[in-house]
Amino acid sequence: MKVKVVSRILQANDRLADENRRLFKEKGVYVINLMSAPGAGKTTLIVETIKALKDRVSIGVVEGDIVGTDDAERIDSLGIPVVQINTHGACHLDANMVREVLDELPLQDIRLLIVENVGNLVCPAEFNIGEDMKVMLLSVSEGDDKPGKYPLMFQESSALLINKIDLLPYLDIDIERIKSTARALNPEIEIIELSCKTGQGMDRWVTFLEEKLQI
Amino acid sequence: MKVKVVSRILQANDRLADENRRLFKEKGVYVINLMSAPGAGKTTLIVETIKALKDRVSIGVVEGDIVGTDDAERIDSLGIPVVQINTHGACHLDANMVREVLDELPLQDIRLLIVENVGNLVCPAEFNIGEDMKVMLLSVSEGDDKPGKYPLMFQESSALLINKIDLLPYLDIDIERIKSTARALNPEIEIIELSCKTGQGMDRWVTFLEEKLQI
Repeated sequence: MKVKVVSRILQANDRLADENRRLFKEKGVYVINLMSAPGAGKTTLIVETIKALKDRVSIGVVEGDIVGTDDAERIDSLGIPVVQINTHGACHLDANMVREVLDELPLQDIRLLIVENVGNLVCPAEFNIGEDMKVMLLSVSEGDDKPGKYPLMFQESSALLINKIDLLPYLDIDIERIKSTARALNPEIEIIELSCKTGQGMDRWVTFLEEKLQI
Repeated sequence: MKVKVVSRILQANDRLADENRRLFKEKGVYVINLMSAPGAGKTTLIVETIKALKDRVSIGVVEGDIVGTDDAERIDSLGIPVVQINTHGACHLDANMVREVLDELPLQDIRLLIVENVGNLVCPAEFNIGEDMKVMLLSVSEGDDKPGKYPLMFQESSALLINKIDLLPYLDIDIERIKSTARALNPEIEIIELSCKTGQGMDRWVTFLEEKLQI
């Protein structure tokens, strides 16, 4: 019974996600659903991505947080259109929440829309929002056992960005274990090691995005 | 309507949590519900706590994970009774899941039961399991904005353990901001800075537990 209720919620969400996807396609917007555990560096990645691409691509951002507007303010200060969703307790974004804020964005002028999901390695992976691509961020400080323990997000994501590699000298982790477990779960996954802080590896992420956007 | 359904689920959970609590009291078991984001170091904290206390207190562990038994195996290798709950997708433990595994533990011989929740800063805080105390772990590598962004867990926890302080020299974070925001949300919260890796601060955590257990 419980399973039936949950699968009905997910089916209803998928229908709304398809509607979002049609709208994005019509407007020529490429949408990234960016997911990670709390504190893996999603907002910093968005800020650095904006700095690298904003002269060539028009970017918009949707910020998902349980409460607060800190992240949206960081993006707004870069002169980028941004809208904040506060989920008031909910642990993920869904297609309906995203749809309800789209009117607040100048979609016709946006080529790349980055949606920052709520920090959570579990539930966001279950809810499509109409994205072209799910991208997940994993901080090396979270340990090398995460793909095995939270498999769905690794299976659903087109790209895995392994962040904070500047901390590797101070951690007892095996980055090859992260990569091999993630590839076992999802052989197609693009894996990029980077540090949003030092900039190392950011060029590979930017090139990957340029290919997706065909620019 | 959605809110009504959710609140009914939480009420039903609270009733089961009260039943668990009565059982734990009857058997003389003190129960900690240990919560954190993925990779903050819950299992390592449990291992180090066992090493520090096992000669004076009988300890049992419940491991909550979406899939897998890695953490339970780490605990089992220390000769401590442990049972693994696999939630198969669910992002938190609830009172019913805990109740269903209690028969697998020698409760009459256990004084301290540590329940390691699923790695998630959101949903576990909503579900009581019959615990005496909720304890949360925050890794400094998650950043200093987490109390403001995930307030419920900080409000619900009796103690906040700020872990991985050995990484502080390599991070741009303000640990005082974590502490002041957490205290603004929950003036009674006990805050202990520690590193499960170097052992720094572990004595304060062990003393805090000794006081709770009156040993």
